[in-house]
Amino acid sequence: MTNSRIAPWASPRAQHRLAEVETAVSADLSAAGVTDTVRNALRAHGTQVDDDGIVLYAGTNVLSPAAAAANLPSVSSRPSMGWPGEKYQVGLEHLDTLEVLAPLLVADLMEGTYAEVRLQSATLANLAVYTAFARPGDKIAVLPEAAGGHASHHAQGVPAVRGLTVVDLPYDPDRLDLDHAALPGFLRVHRPRIVVIGASMMLFPHDVAAVRAACDEVGAILLYDASHMAGLVAGKVFQRPLHEGAHVLTFSTYKSFGGPSGGCVVTRDPDLAERVSTVAYPGLLANYDAGRLGALAVTAAELAERGGGYASACLANAQVLARSLHDHGFTVARRDGEFTRSHHVAVDALDLGGGERAGLLLGEAGVYLSGIGLPWQRPDEGLRGLRIGTQEITRRGFTPADQPAIAALLRRALLDHEAPDRVRADAIALRREVNDREVTRRTP
Amino acid sequence: MTNSRIAPWASPRAQHRLAEVETAVSADLSAAGVTDTVRNALRAHGTQVDDDGIVLYAGTNVLSPAAAAANLPSVSSRPSMGWPGEKYQVGLEHLDTLEVLAPLLVADLMEGTYAEVRLQSATLANLAVYTAFARPGDKIAVLPEAAGGHASHHAQGVPAVRGLTVVDLPYDPDRLDLDHAALPGFLRVHRPRIVVIGASMMLFPHDVAAVRAACDEVGAILLYDASHMAGLVAGKVFQRPLHEGAHVLTFSTYKSFGGPSGGCVVTRDPDLAERVSTVAYPGLLANYDAGRLGALAVTAAELAERGGGYASACLANAQVLARSLHDHGFTVARRDGEFTRSHHVAVDALDLGGGERAGLLLGEAGVYLSGIGLPWQRPDEGLRGLRIGTQEITRRGFTPADQPAIAALLRRALLDHEAPDRVRADAIALRREVNDREVTRRTP
Repeated sequence: MTNSRIAPWASPRAQHRLAEVETAVSADLSAAGVTDTVRNALRAHGTQVDDDGIVLYAGTNVLSPAAAAANLPSVSSRPSMGWPGEKYQVGLEHLDTLEVLAPLLVADLMEGTYAEVRLQSATLANLAVYTAFARPGDKIAVLPEAAGGHASHHAQGVPAVRGLTVVDLPYDPDRLDLDHAALPGFLRVHRPRIVVIGASMMLFPHDVAAVRAACDEVGAILLYDASHMAGLVAGKVFQRPLHEGAHVLTFSTYKSFGGPSGGCVVTRDPDLAERVSTVAYPGLLANYDAGRLGALAVTAAELAERGGGYASACLANAQVLARSLHDHGFTVARRDGEFTRSHHVAVDALDLGGGERAGLLLGEAGVYLSGIGLPWQRPDEGLRGLRIGTQEITRRGFTPADQPAIAALLRRALLDHEAPDRVRADAIALRREVNDREVTRRTP
Repeated sequence: MTNSRIAPWASPRAQHRLAEVETAVSADLSAAGVTDTVRNALRAHGTQVDDDGIVLYAGTNVLSPAAAAANLPSVSSRPSMGWPGEKYQVGLEHLDTLEVLAPLLVADLMEGTYAEVRLQSATLANLAVYTAFARPGDKIAVLPEAAGGHASHHAQGVPAVRGLTVVDLPYDPDRLDLDHAALPGFLRVHRPRIVVIGASMMLFPHDVAAVRAACDEVGAILLYDASHMAGLVAGKVFQRPLHEGAHVLTFSTYKSFGGPSGGCVVTRDPDLAERVSTVAYPGLLANYDAGRLGALAVTAAELAERGGGYASACLANAQVLARSLHDHGFTVARRDGEFTRSHHVAVDALDLGGGERAGLLLGEAGVYLSGIGLPWQRPDEGLRGLRIGTQEITRRGFTPADQPAIAALLRRALLDHEAPDRVRADAIALRREVNDREVTRRTP
């Protein structure tokens, strides 16, 4: 194998690719050469994915035109520390508007009272909650990884930064939900400080009220991580975590929410809000990027106005896509005959060589998504599933009527073993057809 | 007082301003209204600070034109997890180029071997180092706050997130440096796991070799936080922390370094690098923003090619500005008759009503900087100093010949008590004169 210079500790597979790219980019490391290399890479990526891709990856999205325009890049280089009225820096008064609008709109939209919007990611939003409510050595209880428990809930992620012990909540793979019968006893035995629910793949809502009741028995804080579900929560079509009993809601702002990158923490309780706020600043942040907050405010205002339609459209697309995939012969996850109540669809890819292999093959065919663990899989099965999210194709203008054509692309690539290049040509054609239709629709 | 809805726990002063802005923005919370409000705020900010401001704030900068262009906003909504060659996502191959170029160029530029470039801020870069080399309950030793020790070194910041105890290193206010005589004994008593040097105001280099020798005696990791000094380190005009003995270098990429927002960790030791890398991902990051890395790579390549000239120009501007301020009657910090060897200048503002008050007054006069603690101040003196950085005015085209005019603006506003509006008009005129000169100079 070839060694990577930048990460000689990485896996052989990663080092092979790293070394390949290291060699390629080293041909010209002058400022002009690097500028060209970067421009070409960004241009090629934009064409492949933004312009021509069928993006079914569940954790991404595209900004609305108004949100994309609500940006002044120079602001991100202007440190902004402390509340408006007592900032360490001088001359930022106009940005106070953004720092007020964003939490105001986000809190209302998510049915909370207080929103902490300054953290750079949902992972850091979770770390802020862990730090506010648990001390090193304390225990938290989270969803198993194969049930969509995120890395930021598990020991490889931020819980270890805080020095926490992590235990898996009891889960029922058949119901695709927590094992509610076992939960109260489990919590009495483990007495976690925080219980984390909300998953990276989530076909059905949690019974939040039942979890909250069990948490109350042991004095645990209930954190609902809506990173993937935030756009649906905003649109009131999936579930209402704070209304149903979660103490704290965290989420990623660029997935189904469709805003700029970043993380939020929302709650109704002023004491919890103050503790999280103090951990966020000055705990995890010195400067924070006020530039991001303009796009976040616009996104939240748009979701308040028309988020219900967007979220319903995501669900409609997911339901038709799931049915089409099932009709084409895929094994689509379901519960009691129902495929999904969210924008997610899960396909069991065991017979397709596993989710990772199937995802790579689809990538060659111009369809971008990822593998995912499935609750019923064995640990040695890698990522047994394929995870699909309809949030981006919905924003791009795909309708339920387009879903059979997407399902056909997956069938040709994965079941018919057609050459990826041929499928890719049709994927690009489909994308362009929808683009053209959208342009026509939007032109008066 | 008026209560703020978004942060009823904030100070009365902050709540007053928050409530004022809350009322103003609430006039129209429709999507169209919010879009207008945000656009107007960003436009007003850009005019005031970017176009017309004399920005002497030490922790900010402006991107070079090539770095600003090395950006595709949509990339920041495309999650990217894991090394190239084994990414969780599919379809990001073109971005591998950025993920390789940035660490390669940053490591070389800072005289290290390995660079971790994925973290969103220097605060998080410091947290990654703390997490890699100290456990909850361990002790770290840092510079006192009044000697420029950053919030991310102290108990109100990320050390508390990791559960660390913080002690202040012995400091000699007269020498504006560590008390090297007391240091070895201090470290033997406290035995910290990590010693953090490098400050938010730094007029003279540290004796890094002496600190390293003392660290070696107790097995401590020596972290040099070059957040403010990174552009000078890159330009080889201040000091060479890794060459002189620091185990690990962290820095902010948007201050004197002049790149996009973010934080880096650089080291020569592969074992230390691997530990930091593993804490960064999957510890503190799930997705990381590959979009930021294009501008970082271009900035690093430019600094490698012409960073010496830029850094020398920053120093020349700082030295003339310090001398001019002294000549105008300000009390400028110095050591053995020398004002500064960096791009920083410190003014004792005790007779001006303190650094915070003086900073606010200058803001009204169109000159933007901040207060700062001074090593010789009493705790009850607030921020006794004014901190000046010349990194941005240098990039904007200001030369040593322009510094007396800047010093005169400060004199008129702070010593002559001239009306801020009149000073501001001349500050804007000076800025526009330099802008015009730069346009002429760059036009062939």
